[in-house]
Amino acid sequence: MSRFFSEKYSSLTPYTPGEQPQDTKYVKLNTNESPFPPSPKAVAAAAEAARRVQLYSDPECRALMKKFCAVFGLEPDEVVFVNGSDEVLNFAFMAFCDETCGAVFPNITYGFYPVFASLNRVPYTEIPLRGDFTVDVDAYCGVGKTVFIANPNAPTGVALSRAEIERIARSNPDNVVVIDEAYVDFGTETCLPLIRRYDNLLVTQTFSKSRSMAGARLGFGAGDPALIRDLNTIRYSTNPYNVNSMTMAAAIGVLDDEDYTARNCRMIQENRAFTVDALRAMGFTIPDSKANFVFARHETVDGETIYRRLKERGVLVRHFTRPEICDYNRITIGTREQMQILLDTLKTVLEEARA
Amino acid sequence: MSRFFSEKYSSLTPYTPGEQPQDTKYVKLNTNESPFPPSPKAVAAAAEAARRVQLYSDPECRALMKKFCAVFGLEPDEVVFVNGSDEVLNFAFMAFCDETCGAVFPNITYGFYPVFASLNRVPYTEIPLRGDFTVDVDAYCGVGKTVFIANPNAPTGVALSRAEIERIARSNPDNVVVIDEAYVDFGTETCLPLIRRYDNLLVTQTFSKSRSMAGARLGFGAGDPALIRDLNTIRYSTNPYNVNSMTMAAAIGVLDDEDYTARNCRMIQENRAFTVDALRAMGFTIPDSKANFVFARHETVDGETIYRRLKERGVLVRHFTRPEICDYNRITIGTREQMQILLDTLKTVLEEARA
Repeated sequence: MSRFFSEKYSSLTPYTPGEQPQDTKYVKLNTNESPFPPSPKAVAAAAEAARRVQLYSDPECRALMKKFCAVFGLEPDEVVFVNGSDEVLNFAFMAFCDETCGAVFPNITYGFYPVFASLNRVPYTEIPLRGDFTVDVDAYCGVGKTVFIANPNAPTGVALSRAEIERIARSNPDNVVVIDEAYVDFGTETCLPLIRRYDNLLVTQTFSKSRSMAGARLGFGAGDPALIRDLNTIRYSTNPYNVNSMTMAAAIGVLDDEDYTARNCRMIQENRAFTVDALRAMGFTIPDSKANFVFARHETVDGETIYRRLKERGVLVRHFTRPEICDYNRITIGTREQMQILLDTLKTVLEEARA
Repeated sequence: MSRFFSEKYSSLTPYTPGEQPQDTKYVKLNTNESPFPPSPKAVAAAAEAARRVQLYSDPECRALMKKFCAVFGLEPDEVVFVNGSDEVLNFAFMAFCDETCGAVFPNITYGFYPVFASLNRVPYTEIPLRGDFTVDVDAYCGVGKTVFIANPNAPTGVALSRAEIERIARSNPDNVVVIDEAYVDFGTETCLPLIRRYDNLLVTQTFSKSRSMAGARLGFGAGDPALIRDLNTIRYSTNPYNVNSMTMAAAIGVLDDEDYTARNCRMIQENRAFTVDALRAMGFTIPDSKANFVFARHETVDGETIYRRLKERGVLVRHFTRPEICDYNRITIGTREQMQILLDTLKTVLEEARA
């Protein structure tokens, strides 16, 4: 820390992103990326847009907005685009929380929520997940704070139903309820249809996972127009040109290829079922995942050992050191071939660990 | 504003970006973009990167950092990359200002500084420019606040010398001095060589202007490693994947083509000299510009009329409504052909206004 750094951030602990090795020697199953390349339509559109990047991107994202609204059945004043959904989550912490209106989220969830809370000096409460890793819906009903729930949750993969989310939104009419649907396309009901019924509901999604655009950075928030106006007040006070023009073009391309996205999501779900069965047969406990990852604890070998030995053998998974979950690893669902390599490598690792 | 919006932002007035019409009917001289397309090397690299955007971009920007440091003669721990230089400016307001350490900047300068200050609830002082639009260097010496100076300044185009900036940095050893060099490549001395002498100096630049990458969004901050660590603490607490992978690839491409950038900058300077001469002959007053724009006031016709009538005739320039500068228009320097259209159209506009 420099001697100039504001005291207000002196105890800020930043988020630690997953490892992003730049060589290709790993089977990379650690940051929940899609194993499938972006749609050829996205690639072609981005390449074409690259020829004109001397001009600023459109802060209103009009061309993308038009295509997006047609596909998602939303109106432009219900949507804000961001440089990856982390950005809209931070905006929500800025806009809808403060010293008097704290935040509440599960104790085991996306690790960025407590960072955003600290950054914005927002007091927060972590509500423990139940023993089976499900979110304790009753604990959020009428909680009187700004609610952040990842659905499905990370790193567990466990999802709530739309009806359960609706209960939370309905019971907190004076507080914003943010549903982070980063992984929704792999088998969870989206809450987007609820935004016209609940003016306190903000749904966020990303193009990073199901649409294979993690490196392009595009997320969105959807909600009542008044909420979106607030988020745009923040956006236009930080970085109005937050979404670059190549990404907007790529997104239009991928939205023109929804069959491709749907097919990829189906394959992930098939590979997930295959992987879960195989892992359980090897002695792993895995909560029921609706995401493009599984959260796996072995009956005898500890999580850190599995992470480390897999990495030595070229397979990268995500391990968290927090005591409550340090026995687990979060494993991204990739192609069938990647899953087979994972399983073969795990077999070796487990045999060695038992030896 | 929704009923959920935090009171702390209730009086926040966002930045108003320049118009970004998405049709091509305008000669667009309003947001200081380059009239030249990005380097073919940048375009090819971005197109190639688009094929792999299913993977997250590297939060450490290692490949770009290596190329950048070789070209700029800097070390990786002296540099932070951002999603357009607005982002690093906001980070500097977050990191180096607070209720007890306010900010100071000229009364006429980049309109985002007071927005960043308000967003971060930082008290700020605006120091009037002198009558000739020069920055009053003495007023910043020993000022004891965090200093923000655009050099050359916007929207005036007027620059300070490196020696003048050095006086400000040296006389404020306990405060960060931020020099925003968005337009430095069009004829101003950069202060980058000073960052190893002054641990309180942060220099920011952008790839938007001289490198024709406005729509790709890339900026950087350079300074003492301790300053950069602070900015990275903020970056990793907001959006570690802030720079997308297509943009990183494009930047490596453009940095591999510095002759192209240098040639474009020379052409802008030639076109600027040509335009200034012609405008002065038409009765405009223009402070000496070192940027890719000029700030022009006509002797008889008011700024708003000129802006409006130029727009009606398909030429877009930037007009500001603030009373101190409402007689001026900021005109981006484009190609020689664009400048000729501007001059021809202005001739008509002035004749009509006089009729």
